[in-house]
Amino acid sequence: MSQTNHQFRLAARPVGLPKRSDWNYTEETVADPGPGQLVVKVLYLSLDPAMRGWMNEGRSYIEPVKIGDVMRAGGVGRVVSSQNPSFKTGDHVFGMLGIQEYAVSDGKAFTKIDPNVAPLPVYLGALGITGLTAYFGLLDIGRPVAGETVLVSGAAGATGMIVGQIAKIKGCRAVGIAGGPEKCKYVVHELGFDACIDYKAENVMDALRRDCPKGVNVYFDNVGGEILDAALAQLARQARVVICGAISQYNTNGGIKGPANYLSLLINNARMEGFVIFNYAARYAEGVRELATWRAQGKLKSKEDIVEGFQTFPETLLKLFSGESFGKLMIKVAD
Amino acid sequence: MSQTNHQFRLAARPVGLPKRSDWNYTEETVADPGPGQLVVKVLYLSLDPAMRGWMNEGRSYIEPVKIGDVMRAGGVGRVVSSQNPSFKTGDHVFGMLGIQEYAVSDGKAFTKIDPNVAPLPVYLGALGITGLTAYFGLLDIGRPVAGETVLVSGAAGATGMIVGQIAKIKGCRAVGIAGGPEKCKYVVHELGFDACIDYKAENVMDALRRDCPKGVNVYFDNVGGEILDAALAQLARQARVVICGAISQYNTNGGIKGPANYLSLLINNARMEGFVIFNYAARYAEGVRELATWRAQGKLKSKEDIVEGFQTFPETLLKLFSGESFGKLMIKVAD
Repeated sequence: MSQTNHQFRLAARPVGLPKRSDWNYTEETVADPGPGQLVVKVLYLSLDPAMRGWMNEGRSYIEPVKIGDVMRAGGVGRVVSSQNPSFKTGDHVFGMLGIQEYAVSDGKAFTKIDPNVAPLPVYLGALGITGLTAYFGLLDIGRPVAGETVLVSGAAGATGMIVGQIAKIKGCRAVGIAGGPEKCKYVVHELGFDACIDYKAENVMDALRRDCPKGVNVYFDNVGGEILDAALAQLARQARVVICGAISQYNTNGGIKGPANYLSLLINNARMEGFVIFNYAARYAEGVRELATWRAQGKLKSKEDIVEGFQTFPETLLKLFSGESFGKLMIKVAD
Repeated sequence: MSQTNHQFRLAARPVGLPKRSDWNYTEETVADPGPGQLVVKVLYLSLDPAMRGWMNEGRSYIEPVKIGDVMRAGGVGRVVSSQNPSFKTGDHVFGMLGIQEYAVSDGKAFTKIDPNVAPLPVYLGALGITGLTAYFGLLDIGRPVAGETVLVSGAAGATGMIVGQIAKIKGCRAVGIAGGPEKCKYVVHELGFDACIDYKAENVMDALRRDCPKGVNVYFDNVGGEILDAALAQLARQARVVICGAISQYNTNGGIKGPANYLSLLINNARMEGFVIFNYAARYAEGVRELATWRAQGKLKSKEDIVEGFQTFPETLLKLFSGESFGKLMIKVAD
């Protein structure tokens, strides 16, 4: 095919925030697909906080990315060549394509997607892993009941904004925590949350007492750190704390700050539970079906933060950790 | 009746370990019982880590002991005078008698106990709140399955020793953590635990890898702090962490140390859950029945650490926090 492929490969394990020198930008010719293989031209790449964890050594829910390997990432693309009977040229797919312009694969972990049902970027957000993370994390781990108060941090982030909207669909009071007036306004006025706390401008503990006067029944945590502690202090009896992520802690060099208020679990007979979305793979179809229905009914809005240009990857990734990103962050690689 | 009653009343809210000056030792004449009341001569008083929490101000699962009030404590005693038709002179009872020599009460929260079924001190330990805490905490929150590994800290403490024995009864591997070779030997040789880690002599993280090679399925935490962090690092997938207490943290002045390894909950799809035994009051009878059966069958041993003399209370209480106590700590007040 003599197409040229570019990649970002992990050059070094980052200490703190990933630096430009932690990446190698490489170039190679795209191989022709072997028997059973297909070649996908990458169109959009998903940038997610979890990627920071994959760069670290040590036992986790998934193998670390090896030094020298193409960085792992979800993406959507178009099949440009196929020797796999399940995929034909022109098909659109979602899969772990990696931070590169072309992916060669046996297609086993790819899912076909239909650009007529939703624009391609939505398959990386509300109808993708992000939406599924919100869906199973909230409904399966958090188990909200109509009338309860659901609090979510990172409320203007990709997962958080879906969590709050599902909470509303399920008849709950939805309260968000986000950084800055623009995000808070969006969360309340566009997405229909009942309230949003601006952690940059307010004392979160005081604001929680105001906005969650009956206590927090479900707290969906994307951030960790001091906000997790504040939420723990305001738990209702038998509350559920869903540990989805801890973006405030991923790049700290001094070690992770544990939740000092964890004994609130004891006095409130409450529970804190973590989850990894990949363990729900067998139920993805169920989740996507319901999310797509809500989206079609206008009950579930999505917002994508699309940055153009494959080569921006090292800098664009940092938007996740600076609080700059607003909605589902992704890179547009090609049309 | 003209009996003299002595009490320890809370004089000040302790900062760190309770000092002698945080108590007032008072004397008064025992009142005659009014209509519906009874007078109990206190025989044994239970000393428990939870008492430290009751001395603090602030919202908790139970009202703080007020300054000037008799210190709250469970105890067993003998009815010496009664105007309550449910109790007669000579009956033995368990109840929240308080740190005093005589308790006057309407008896509503008292339970009659039979000294022919078990010696009185056992009603403060294996067949009392301590045993029930182990029973419901392990079985209802921890939900161990035969073949799984159950880890318990404070394994030579009143609750921990019952937890490990119930784990064995349920067909699990029981691993304890305790301080010193004497306690560890007792836990393994007398109580039948599979292993016991001496946290004073060993690196707990290394020892956990050795003694829980397949990971920890249920961790019953009585201590918090660094041991909780070590246990979190060794969780198996879908593990359950039962937060029963945090004795290492109750007297710290610098604030509680949160578990820095809490993200192990995320990568292992694991859960951390707290509980307060008082919420199981409706099921106490069920728990006591099963504990008593196991005890009668010789499957459940108990060990009491009985200190003689009511006036030793301020110093005896500190044994809980110094690691000195071994078995269920109590004070013998009278024969």
